[in-house]
Amino acid sequence: MLIELRPEAAAQPIVDLVQAVPGLTAWPLRYGERRFVVVSGDEDLVPGFGAGDVIATHSTRERGYWLVDREHRIVPDTVRVGGVSVGRGHPLWFAGGPCALEETDAAGRTATAVREAGGHALRGGLFKPRSSPYHFLGRGRSGLADLEKIGHASGLPIVTEVMDPRDVEAVAEVASCVQVDARNMHNRVLLAELGRIGRPVLLMRGLRAGVPEWLRAAEFVVAHGNPEVILCARGVVSFDDTLAFQPDLGALLAVRRLTDLPVVFDPSHCAGRADAVGTVALSAVLAGADGLMVETHVDPGSLYRPGDAHQMYPIDRLAALFEAANVVRDVRDAL
Amino acid sequence: MLIELRPEAAAQPIVDLVQAVPGLTAWPLRYGERRFVVVSGDEDLVPGFGAGDVIATHSTRERGYWLVDREHRIVPDTVRVGGVSVGRGHPLWFAGGPCALEETDAAGRTATAVREAGGHALRGGLFKPRSSPYHFLGRGRSGLADLEKIGHASGLPIVTEVMDPRDVEAVAEVASCVQVDARNMHNRVLLAELGRIGRPVLLMRGLRAGVPEWLRAAEFVVAHGNPEVILCARGVVSFDDTLAFQPDLGALLAVRRLTDLPVVFDPSHCAGRADAVGTVALSAVLAGADGLMVETHVDPGSLYRPGDAHQMYPIDRLAALFEAANVVRDVRDAL
Amino acid sequence: MLIELRPEAAAQPIVDLVQAVPGLTAWPLRYGERRFVVVSGDEDLVPGFGAGDVIATHSTRERGYWLVDREHRIVPDTVRVGGVSVGRGHPLWFAGGPCALEETDAAGRTATAVREAGGHALRGGLFKPRSSPYHFLGRGRSGLADLEKIGHASGLPIVTEVMDPRDVEAVAEVASCVQVDARNMHNRVLLAELGRIGRPVLLMRGLRAGVPEWLRAAEFVVAHGNPEVILCARGVVSFDDTLAFQPDLGALLAVRRLTDLPVVFDPSHCAGRADAVGTVALSAVLAGADGLMVETHVDPGSLYRPGDAHQMYPIDRLAALFEAANVVRDVRDAL
Amino acid sequence: MLIELRPEAAAQPIVDLVQAVPGLTAWPLRYGERRFVVVSGDEDLVPGFGAGDVIATHSTRERGYWLVDREHRIVPDTVRVGGVSVGRGHPLWFAGGPCALEETDAAGRTATAVREAGGHALRGGLFKPRSSPYHFLGRGRSGLADLEKIGHASGLPIVTEVMDPRDVEAVAEVASCVQVDARNMHNRVLLAELGRIGRPVLLMRGLRAGVPEWLRAAEFVVAHGNPEVILCARGVVSFDDTLAFQPDLGALLAVRRLTDLPVVFDPSHCAGRADAVGTVALSAVLAGADGLMVETHVDPGSLYRPGDAHQMYPIDRLAALFEAANVVRDVRDAL
Repeated sequence: MLIELRPEAAAQPIVDLVQAVPGLTAWPLRYGERRFVVVSGDEDLVPGFGAGDVIATHSTRERGYWLVDREHRIVPDTVRVGGVSVGRGHPLWFAGGPCALEETDAAGRTATAVREAGGHALRGGLFKPRSSPYHFLGRGRSGLADLEKIGHASGLPIVTEVMDPRDVEAVAEVASCVQVDARNMHNRVLLAELGRIGRPVLLMRGLRAGVPEWLRAAEFVVAHGNPEVILCARGVVSFDDTLAFQPDLGALLAVRRLTDLPVVFDPSHCAGRADAVGTVALSAVLAGADGLMVETHVDPGSLYRPGDAHQMYPIDRLAALFEAANVVRDVRDAL
Repeated sequence: MLIELRPEAAAQPIVDLVQAVPGLTAWPLRYGERRFVVVSGDEDLVPGFGAGDVIATHSTRERGYWLVDREHRIVPDTVRVGGVSVGRGHPLWFAGGPCALEETDAAGRTATAVREAGGHALRGGLFKPRSSPYHFLGRGRSGLADLEKIGHASGLPIVTEVMDPRDVEAVAEVASCVQVDARNMHNRVLLAELGRIGRPVLLMRGLRAGVPEWLRAAEFVVAHGNPEVILCARGVVSFDDTLAFQPDLGALLAVRRLTDLPVVFDPSHCAGRADAVGTVALSAVLAGADGLMVETHVDPGSLYRPGDAHQMYPIDRLAALFEAANVVRDVRDAL
Repeated sequence: MLIELRPEAAAQPIVDLVQAVPGLTAWPLRYGERRFVVVSGDEDLVPGFGAGDVIATHSTRERGYWLVDREHRIVPDTVRVGGVSVGRGHPLWFAGGPCALEETDAAGRTATAVREAGGHALRGGLFKPRSSPYHFLGRGRSGLADLEKIGHASGLPIVTEVMDPRDVEAVAEVASCVQVDARNMHNRVLLAELGRIGRPVLLMRGLRAGVPEWLRAAEFVVAHGNPEVILCARGVVSFDDTLAFQPDLGALLAVRRLTDLPVVFDPSHCAGRADAVGTVALSAVLAGADGLMVETHVDPGSLYRPGDAHQMYPIDRLAALFEAANVVRDVRDAL
Repeated sequence: MLIELRPEAAAQPIVDLVQAVPGLTAWPLRYGERRFVVVSGDEDLVPGFGAGDVIATHSTRERGYWLVDREHRIVPDTVRVGGVSVGRGHPLWFAGGPCALEETDAAGRTATAVREAGGHALRGGLFKPRSSPYHFLGRGRSGLADLEKIGHASGLPIVTEVMDPRDVEAVAEVASCVQVDARNMHNRVLLAELGRIGRPVLLMRGLRAGVPEWLRAAEFVVAHGNPEVILCARGVVSFDDTLAFQPDLGALLAVRRLTDLPVVFDPSHCAGRADAVGTVALSAVLAGADGLMVETHVDPGSLYRPGDAHQMYPIDRLAALFEAANVVRDVRDAL
């Protein structure tokens, strides 16, 4: 439940009153002029409040989110990543780069090539979610300094992942946008931590999360103070194994109806094979994506995980893909 | 297993030899100059044949299909529906009309409007698969005469469904293309019967059939003598309920790699809502569809199943959709 | 919709009145004293009826079934298969035999062994649903005479499959119970035909059918005149591939709440491997199954489909399995 | 990859050698007499080692786990939770209690009742995974002292959840067994942290994780130094909504074949409704579970999350359930 306060009301006494009830937790939240107390717990336990302090209580029982609902006009419809606006009404946003940041020199040349192809940001992770301890887990914290250098050298803002709440602060210092992997979409500890930083959060959809679950994950970030969330679809699990994941076009359409948050698409993890990346990328634009985040690399053969090479989009065809995306976007807008 | 015969070899003795083995069934098949004996049953039971009669035995153990495999060049890459060619290298093929044929006059006006929008065929079913006996089951055989009249009056070839093997002959007399619904993709009795007619078969993908299963279903038709199969994707089941079915773009891509058979897409059953039909239709074209089959009607309010109305594409926007599809096709070909 | 008639009312005039409305189809139905007109089509189109002829109109809009609902007491809670009662309140019913009937002599010996182990019926199919024309499709109609002989010789009633509506009559003459395969659960043409015979129908659950869909399929049979339906669960599709299909215990529990129809379980197709058959069989009994139908054979090595051998339960352990099932049933009843 | 060292070899030089290769990370591991270097990263990058220091290199490429494989006899087949042995060959282990620890007094009385019913441990969480910030998130760290008191008073060891790597140490001081929720099965940051404690870890299966993924998650814990992992199945997602989750009997069977680690079952989250808990609990015992962890509470009406009440097993029937489980276990062992 959200308790919306009058401009002159003090938040702390309300927080204290709620917290005194066993089973409830509360904290204050402010967005511009609007001030709230966020309450976790069963709504029936929340005491009533006089009209003196409280404008309204917003029930979240039915859907589990309220702040990200486009009807409530709390979150922005544009998020800026390193100076570039992402969202409806803006040009398509393009990010490119390897899944995992590896050798610094190649990453730097990749960044330059992405920028020259028309890209607006470099992607590259240091902490990779893996299902086995024997898989390459990413370079870890020690790569942060390199990532910063590559960003400076290429002039591109950095989008990079975080997995451990203890790394959030350090990563946010280097990254222009902090990415949450699909497998962490449900990690409320991490999401709460990301609600406390002053950086946009790129929130991947869980591999089998429904759209409302995805929006509730975004709500976790927003309810802890950070309104700058970019949703990122990347396909969902399916019995159909023709692609790595099934393109979730319906979710893109739905998200546009339900929230103002920008939404982008990762065609590389979705397709899982370079020759299908273009098709799913353009389909996502048809379905309303505000941008694309594509895996690409100047030298796929040099990757620490050789298996990743086959889903790298050829960097010399990246500019053509971005142009095609713009054509398709015009078709969409005219439909 | 397929036993490929020398041009001069007699098929019947080979058929008899195979049939004499308990557990095996066999029948002769001819495509142009190439002659086969089709064998159902475990390959290890099939007796060996001398090189006198037999060119080769083609194992089907691994994948369960052979004739539709594009490497073997048995099935055509173009199927003609009432004089119009469907397949790669030809213009996109467009069919439109209601899911179920209902009132004759409205169906006739719909046919005219579809033709004027640039459509090449009229769709409309008389036998509907339904999960409850209390749902509208279609007009049945008594509607065949009407269907024929509508076809003549509008000049459009008819695509219509068949469910009962006992109806196949009568339907094939009226239809230019006989449709098999997704729920019947596994109905081998029906597929075998459709292998014996001289009409193209439009074979919908089962709602959770893998691509190999779909191709094996096509193989059933082809192995019984009919090479003219058009595959029709229409979305697949998913946990994600943002659309009626998840657009199966990966399957479209896969089918293009695996077979020469034309493949079209039904965006209406996939989307389940008119406002998403355009998006999924164009995405399917990006993924390689050779045509679209769209539900539309001049007067959706008059339908016997009022629930169908909300997925009918507005007939006055059909021409614009077809044009957009052609633009997107050009983007695809240039990618 | 079901229109329930007064005892003295004539059905035909009501049927005619309904049929005169475009979009509606109707037929009469009688169960004991209770008389109905079954209506297919949108309920809003059905004309009103005076209280003179009609007791009540039963809406089927919400769930799509009514006759099989246990609240309405139309269908029996016991179905007799060759003289043995199946259903709650009766001892567990056991059927055994090969999936497909193959060599007659071995089938006969299998029947004897099943009877000696405590089995009440022999299973064995002549028409097999297969996804490829190159798979063994069953012996077909020519095996019916053999099946009859085996039944007579062993004294066991026969449960056998039908796939083609044109075979229903011939199969029903030989079988004590006619089986509908999971892939045909949605085949309304076949189900309607089975509504017209005087034999129990064993209705397998579709591989991904919800419980309401399954009950609607049963309703198809019952609405066409045949109340003797035995539901048969056999596992459902799942991402989890540890068994061939996931045991659908929840569905068994649900079916017991929703309908009086007996429900049995096929552990062999569910498990897909002999060493798991016992576990899933007993679990199904815990969940309320009224019987088990187990694949078994005296000589699995002789099967036409060698692949089936590994899911055959060892016939010499069948009696022990049936005894364990009875123990588990007592645990269930005491829980 | 695991590099197994000779007893006299020094681990650090090998670790250093591996770490010097970009893309590889390594650490030492010891189980009894057996000593390893664990390597994360592509196996082809690992340098060769002379026979002087290395017994063998164990590839983990194919399955992603090695230490938990029952063939390798590294992990124990028995784990002790507060003095009680869990695993094959031991009596069934029973844990009971509420999902979330709430009011202390009721939790204490629940603990006593669980013990009197034959339970061996108390379950109760302070940190709950939730999909919305407005749901009750658990009492958090402040409840740890209470949890300790309840454990002491009742004499039952405590099984409780951890979500945040920063909480692991504090929780491990109070708990006899630390639980990882299904949604955290993939959280490698948390799993690595749990590899460093001296407490058994109860590892729930992810809601759609395959068995190999589950074993790889266990491997994360073991590869970081903690061999005491108890697997806990709790049902998996399914299209079938008759229960909250589909009982994963096949996974239980598979786990018994693949690993020596004990495996228990949580019937409450699986069933999602009290009246189905008994059925799925006993089915899991049939499938090989070494124990059950059941949600129960002396006063379900008092719970902070009223929705949880309907899945609480009646505490006065708990003893009977445990007895039935023992009967079913005997049936299983005799099968």
